[in-house]
Formats: sequence, structure tokens, C-alpha cells
Amino acid sequence: MGLTRVNHYQVFAGTLSQYVHSSSVLNCQMRFSVFLPPGVTQHQSLPVVYWLSGLTCSDENFSQKAGAFRVAAELGLALVIPDTSPRGDNVPDDEGYDLGQGAGFYVNATEAPWSEHYQMYDYIWEELPALVEAQLPVGSKRAISGHSMGGHGALVIGLRNPERYRSISAFSPIANPCSCPWGNKALEAYLGGNKLNWLEYDACELLKMAPSPLPILVDQGEADDFLEEQLKPERLKAAAEHNNSPLELRMQAGYDHSYYFISSFIEDHLRFHASYLFD
Amino acid sequence: MGLTRVNHYQVFAGTLSQYVHSSSVLNCQMRFSVFLPPGVTQHQSLPVVYWLSGLTCSDENFSQKAGAFRVAAELGLALVIPDTSPRGDNVPDDEGYDLGQGAGFYVNATEAPWSEHYQMYDYIWEELPALVEAQLPVGSKRAISGHSMGGHGALVIGLRNPERYRSISAFSPIANPCSCPWGNKALEAYLGGNKLNWLEYDACELLKMAPSPLPILVDQGEADDFLEEQLKPERLKAAAEHNNSPLELRMQAGYDHSYYFISSFIEDHLRFHASYLFD
Repeated sequence: MGLTRVNHYQVFAGTLSQYVHSSSVLNCQMRFSVFLPPGVTQHQSLPVVYWLSGLTCSDENFSQKAGAFRVAAELGLALVIPDTSPRGDNVPDDEGYDLGQGAGFYVNATEAPWSEHYQMYDYIWEELPALVEAQLPVGSKRAISGHSMGGHGALVIGLRNPERYRSISAFSPIANPCSCPWGNKALEAYLGGNKLNWLEYDACELLKMAPSPLPILVDQGEADDFLEEQLKPERLKAAAEHNNSPLELRMQAGYDHSYYFISSFIEDHLRFHASYLFD
Repeated sequence: MGLTRVNHYQVFAGTLSQYVHSSSVLNCQMRFSVFLPPGVTQHQSLPVVYWLSGLTCSDENFSQKAGAFRVAAELGLALVIPDTSPRGDNVPDDEGYDLGQGAGFYVNATEAPWSEHYQMYDYIWEELPALVEAQLPVGSKRAISGHSMGGHGALVIGLRNPERYRSISAFSPIANPCSCPWGNKALEAYLGGNKLNWLEYDACELLKMAPSPLPILVDQGEADDFLEEQLKPERLKAAAEHNNSPLELRMQAGYDHSYYFISSFIEDHLRFHASYLFD
């Protein structure tokens, strides 16, 4: 369970640190980033938001572009920002940007050549929290959020583990991966052709069935080029209505799929999570 | 004077647009970015902060990483963000990151092979403002700010043109380029070996002599790896004291040279400029 700090920055009087560690779940070395607010001591157990990034991202995109640290510092929230897939020369990859390294889709792969490393679901819900809670001043009051593929991941992991999180949010999530090109490609590669095995990784399917779903906030830009073909938030809304679930879906006129959109509303998401984490 | 919009984003209810145009001063095509706050009409003449970026940067680093748009939107400020040098296959370059493309140092080069294109001083003080004031809702109430090489540029251009700007600020500026490795290399290449010709591009020399210098705010991280060898803010402070000039130099413990530092204090800089621009 060794944790090696490889970079460290002061930002908004708090700290952003990048760590590497050997992941037994993913069978490779992984990097992630942690923001801690000002004045934290090693003995604290801070409320924490896990942020799952989208296709092609590493742990760095959110740190550099989301503008989240001002509000996290103010609220006293820790942020844990993992990578989006296993990495390394020995880890299988694909030429497409939407499969393989940078595109783990937060599933436990069952198919060759992916299954040896691509176990991002277990990494995010279990291995990474155990590591940070043991070694950093981060506690077990958790929320989960993410963007696009990471919005899908946040919804799936939060809905399947309601005892482990207090709230879920997403920007522009791939809401119904069983029924969109990105999802079809990834789920077939990682899980095989039997679509029944895909259902447990589809937020719409999960939300329809969830016995007591967590509070969910979703922001979606109306000028997002991926909205119709890939994201399908209207299906998430229908699933929530079907199940009488506490989903707030906000369609934001004029915004696209970029981090400029995320930066405009990340404050709302952190305050939403804080309202449950500090409850 | 054609201006072609090549990218456009909504952010904090305002807009960020990237434009390209043919620069007659630089003799090449140039790109720059403009943030406009919400609710602007074409007939307005907004107060504006020009942001000059550092070595290796384009117009995009500040937009993506500084987190400046929230406060600019609130204050009603336009931001104009130029590139750091002439660009293109026909523009001379150097293998070093600190000379040539991405490293124009905001001077008017006199030496071959640079002088045909490297006229960034005239581009920033004259050609670019004329263009944006003619074609965008940006007015002639101007402030100027920048980072590192761009902090040097902001100080030099602001000090030499006090009638054109209301205030100057800088993060981690190269304060005394006549006496540091980055400055020596660039000024010798662009201006030749006669150091007398360098003085008009040295903020310390200019500040010592300036008849009525503008208000200046400078933030400098104490954990900045370039502080001692390249930046030398203490000399800027001595020059200001020599001339009884209104310089506020803030040494910020723990901060480095990165955009994490800039993002932590950009709000202070925009509010500083707004206090003069809306005066």
C-alpha cells in the first residue's frame, strides 16, 4: 500500500498532490491527485468528493481546468481525482480514443485482452478509497461526481453502492451506454456480446430499479455536440420519474461539452455535495 | 483588418472566442482569445484587461487554467489574451523553449533573422488594441497584466505607455531581464549585443525613470524555482522605492511558478484593475 508523492502544488492556500501507487486491482502503477483544503492535519478525516474524468483524460485535466479548488478550499472538502484507466506499456490499448488507455469506462472487464487490467469499477469503489482513507486525511463521508464517461461512472458506482456515498452528480454523463455508440463499443469490448451483462453498468437501468437512490444533480449543456447521439439525459430523467427518484437534471442553454462548461457550474456541484457531506 | 472567429465557448454566462487575423506588424497570421462578460451588446466599449502569457504559452493556457472568467463576468470586464510570439512555418524559430516561437519577449526585434516578424511590442500596444476596439465591444479603458515573460511584457508596455493603460499587474515577472539568463539570451538575440538597447525593455530600468508610473500590483510565489536566478522582484521593489512609485509587491509563501498560483490570486488582480477601470 505504498503511496509516493510525485508532485505537489499550493493552490488557494490548500494543496494539490499527485501520487503514484501500485494497484493490485488494476495490476499496474496508477497515478491520482488529491486536493486538501487549507489547515488540514494528518489526523483529520475530511469529507471527500471523488471526481471521475472523461474519455482521453488523466487525473490532470480536472485539476488544471475545472476551477474547483477555490470552493473546495472554502468548504473544507477533499477532492480525489483518479485516472481514467489502467496505464503502461504492458497494459492493452486500442487505436481509438474511446477504448483502452484513457477509456476504462469504470467497468470490470471480463473479456480478453482487457480483463487482466481493466477493473476500474473495483478500483474506484474499493481499492482507491481504502488507500486514501488509510494514508491521507480523507474520511468515509464520500460523494462522487464526474464528466461524460466519468459522469456515467459516478452514476453507476453511486447507484450500485448507496451505502458508500451520500450524493452523486454528473456533467454531461453518458447516461444510457447500452444504447449509444461510445457505450456499445466499450461495453462489447470489455464485457462481451451478451447485453444482459451490460445492464449493471447503465445508469438508466440502475436508476429504474434502485431501491433507495441517492440524491443526484446532473448538468447538461444544450450546445453539447454529443448530446443527442451519445448522452441522452432525457432517458435518465425518465428512469428517475419511473422510480420516483431524487434527480435534478438541469439543461444549460448555450454550453458545450468542454471544461468551460464544467468550470461554470462546479461550484454548484460542490455545494450540493457539501450539503449532504456535512449534514 | 479581417477578424475570423475560429472557436467559441460559453463560460460563466459570458463568451470566450478565439480569433485569427493577418497581422501587418508581425507579418503573419495570429490567433488571440477574447472573453466578454454576459449581456454585452456590440455597441458597448467595455473596460478591458490585456493578459500577456509566459514562455511556451499560446493564448489558450490562461483561458483554460487561470479561472479568471468567473470574476471577469461578475465585474463586467473584457479580457484580451494574445499569443506570445509570431507563429508559422515561415517564422524563424529556435530549438530552445526560451527563444523564437512562444518566446517573443514583447520586444521589437532589430536583428536578423528575427526582425521581419518579431515585433511583439508594437503588436501588443498598438495593432491588437486597434483591431479589437474597432471590431469588438472593447473600449480604450485598458489595463495590462501577465505572467513571467508576460509579466515582464505587461510592466514594460504599461510603464512606457502610461497614457494608454490605467493599471499594471504581474505574476512572477521577469523583472530585470538585463540581468538574468532568460533575458540576456532573448535580448541579445532580438536586439543585438549593445546592452544600451536593452534598457527600454527592462522593467527595473523603466520604473527607476518613469515620470508618473501607473499603479502596479505584483504577486510572486516564494516557492518559485525561478525566483532567484530569473525573476528578481526585489530589484523591482528597489526601483519603485528609488522613484517613489506605487508598487505593491506581495511575496506569497508556498506558491510556485504555475497556473495554480495564478488561479489563486487572479481575482485580486482583476479587482485591482477594475478599481481603476471603473473609476
